Amino acid sequence: MSLNNKCGKLPQSRHNNNISIIVIGDEILIGQVTDTNSGDIARMVAPHGWNVNDVQAVGDNALMILQAIDQAFATSDIVLTTGGLGPTKDDITKSVLCQYFGGELRHDSSVLETVKEVVAKRHLKLNELTAAQAIVPSSCKVIQNKVGTAPIMWFEKDGKVLVSMPGVPFEMHQMFEQAVLPMLNNRFHSDVTIEHRTLLITNWSESQLAMEISDWEDALPPYIHLAYLPRPGIIRLRLDGTHTDKDFINQELDRCKNELIEKFGNDILHDDDLTPPEILLHHLRRLGLNVSTAESCTGGNIAHLITSIPGSSAVFNGSIVAYSNDVKQSVLNVKSETLIIHGAVSIPTVEEMATGACDKLATQCAIATSGIAGPDGGTADKPVGTVCIAVKTPLGIISQTRHFPGNRSRVIDQASTTAIIMLISQLKKIYYPHCH
Amino acid sequence: MSLNNKCGKLPQSRHNNNISIIVIGDEILIGQVTDTNSGDIARMVAPHGWNVNDVQAVGDNALMILQAIDQAFATSDIVLTTGGLGPTKDDITKSVLCQYFGGELRHDSSVLETVKEVVAKRHLKLNELTAAQAIVPSSCKVIQNKVGTAPIMWFEKDGKVLVSMPGVPFEMHQMFEQAVLPMLNNRFHSDVTIEHRTLLITNWSESQLAMEISDWEDALPPYIHLAYLPRPGIIRLRLDGTHTDKDFINQELDRCKNELIEKFGNDILHDDDLTPPEILLHHLRRLGLNVSTAESCTGGNIAHLITSIPGSSAVFNGSIVAYSNDVKQSVLNVKSETLIIHGAVSIPTVEEMATGACDKLATQCAIATSGIAGPDGGTADKPVGTVCIAVKTPLGIISQTRHFPGNRSRVIDQASTTAIIMLISQLKKIYYPHCH
Repeated sequence: MSLNNKCGKLPQSRHNNNISIIVIGDEILIGQVTDTNSGDIARMVAPHGWNVNDVQAVGDNALMILQAIDQAFATSDIVLTTGGLGPTKDDITKSVLCQYFGGELRHDSSVLETVKEVVAKRHLKLNELTAAQAIVPSSCKVIQNKVGTAPIMWFEKDGKVLVSMPGVPFEMHQMFEQAVLPMLNNRFHSDVTIEHRTLLITNWSESQLAMEISDWEDALPPYIHLAYLPRPGIIRLRLDGTHTDKDFINQELDRCKNELIEKFGNDILHDDDLTPPEILLHHLRRLGLNVSTAESCTGGNIAHLITSIPGSSAVFNGSIVAYSNDVKQSVLNVKSETLIIHGAVSIPTVEEMATGACDKLATQCAIATSGIAGPDGGTADKPVGTVCIAVKTPLGIISQTRHFPGNRSRVIDQASTTAIIMLISQLKKIYYPHCH
Repeated sequence: MSLNNKCGKLPQSRHNNNISIIVIGDEILIGQVTDTNSGDIARMVAPHGWNVNDVQAVGDNALMILQAIDQAFATSDIVLTTGGLGPTKDDITKSVLCQYFGGELRHDSSVLETVKEVVAKRHLKLNELTAAQAIVPSSCKVIQNKVGTAPIMWFEKDGKVLVSMPGVPFEMHQMFEQAVLPMLNNRFHSDVTIEHRTLLITNWSESQLAMEISDWEDALPPYIHLAYLPRPGIIRLRLDGTHTDKDFINQELDRCKNELIEKFGNDILHDDDLTPPEILLHHLRRLGLNVSTAESCTGGNIAHLITSIPGSSAVFNGSIVAYSNDVKQSVLNVKSETLIIHGAVSIPTVEEMATGACDKLATQCAIATSGIAGPDGGTADKPVGTVCIAVKTPLGIISQTRHFPGNRSRVIDQASTTAIIMLISQLKKIYYPHCH
């Protein structure tokens, strides 16, 4: 395979119906806040055939905002901005948009009514600054914000649309989904459908997998594109199909997906775009089993990942985070000899922790972890990143010792995901006892 | 206060030494991966007087990457790119950079040696695709990647620099901090210092706070800028100072910060840019106290937030995630009468949970939560978002019922942060018993 050939060959954009996003706020650029709005918008627009072409993040700086708008309109008919609409002085988006689209800032009494309702719902008093949210450019159409105080502003120029939305993620999400997206669908008609299929594959590295399916990938039709999205312990393979015929592209995507399923069989953790905790809950519900966790180095993160999913209470009883050895003994009934002979980070300890969790929390399945998340606590024998994991199911207990690279949070993340995937793999053996 | 005046007044960029970041990858634009690299870079460059001027996210698309580079060089002398360097076919960054900066793709044996070392450390075998990472544009200077297989590439053109880095966050972080940043500091000399001060304030809404300090804010010198960064239950006020004289700007920032501390006294949760869990650990260590949690609706998230911080094991014993009522009774000794009479989501229940956690996990302090995170389970009496929180300290138990807006993950986040802030406030009373 020669990469040299690629040097002069430049593929063009696969999509129509471009959206450009501008994320506004100094807090993004100095790294105090991570932008999650652009990804959220991308996930919401994809099923409607829209495509986020580019995202620009700029500070609360008029010149940069104006440049970003020019740049965005150069590639997209729809520009969405988030943020920079707070009541305080560092937020200048409204006056910059007023300059760009013309007109003047003026008071809008319908906005004031909405702001009053929102403030009342929050049991707060309306003050002068919040009331000033009702001052909007005369050149925009206002979309009332039912969940926050900053109004959404819809501007049009030369057949193109810019919508300014608040930066608070839940406000943006709710108002975009309920108000802005339907208006965009109404204003612009899309004749291209973009559909996706995702497969979650374990036991392969990204490059091993890519080599295995290299010929297959080369033979994909031009309207189907394959992307690799590696995660700790798992690779998401995503097939993107773009076509004007929705039924056709869905058939084609299903065909390609089934070819991959045939190829990778047991290594496919799931054939839908679920997270590992979601897959775990799916299997537990199907099998009528429940689960608990006994966590040392993961510190409650596995319980948190499971309980983040709506409906988890049906299969999750609880967790014992046993950070100290005392708690491992007193609550989880780990034997003191085990801790003395093998140490807290050992296979015998995590196996006793898993059994203790099942007993104490009355569950058929359990996940147990004990390790050295770092940055301190490592030894020559058990360096930082060493994690012992046990999972207990009606099939018995299995366990392993792993060595994860990276810093504390990365070790915790990888250990949590690996433990969840271990339990999923065991549960799959209950359905398919002959496939190991 | 007239916002109208602002309409025509456009402040210019406050900073020199601009950096533009280009984040490359379809996975970012379709919202399957959230970019954390740009914020991470911003935090690393700030102490060195660099300023991230803008961030562009583009797909694995040659045309868009080329446009983004042109746009970035128009405003910045330094352009950093992350991502698009994987061994698979969807990653085209290397060939696009080769086209932009000239030269040809060729094999670099020193890169192959490094790739072999990295692959060996991961106990993997070198395959053809990974070996192809050693093919690099002849126009770049290679920086060997010690922690991953994609080499870092340093390009120069017309006195400007572009550095292409991998997208895997821990690889990017480590290589940027250890190799790229020192080289940038060496290549470009900065004569402007940017310093920050952060204060964390509770009990105020953003707009109330902004009105309270409006006159003070107006009187700030031009080299100091104030930003409001609201979070659940907390507002971060950040002062940014930009000046060529480092001592002077630090003195000025301290002066402004002290004026705010005098103004807000007891409402200041902390006078440094720590997260609430970091502040909690700071106080527990100073007071020689330890803590445990008893979590129902927060599902282990509070334990996870605490144990994410290095050194937490010194003050955190463990947690009992009591998702089912059985676990609340059997492990935390909540009385069945309490559950029957008051319900699981009630002040008496969380107070008994806090006491149970202190007893079972041998701690002087405890946080307990029970609530309805949603989307199901709400009633007219206790709607989704209702959360009871108790915190126990040597001063006794305090508790409150709160109603948090938003979806499940937002309710969990807000309940967790609010509970941690409640405990911090109680611990502060141990130092300053007369200030309530």
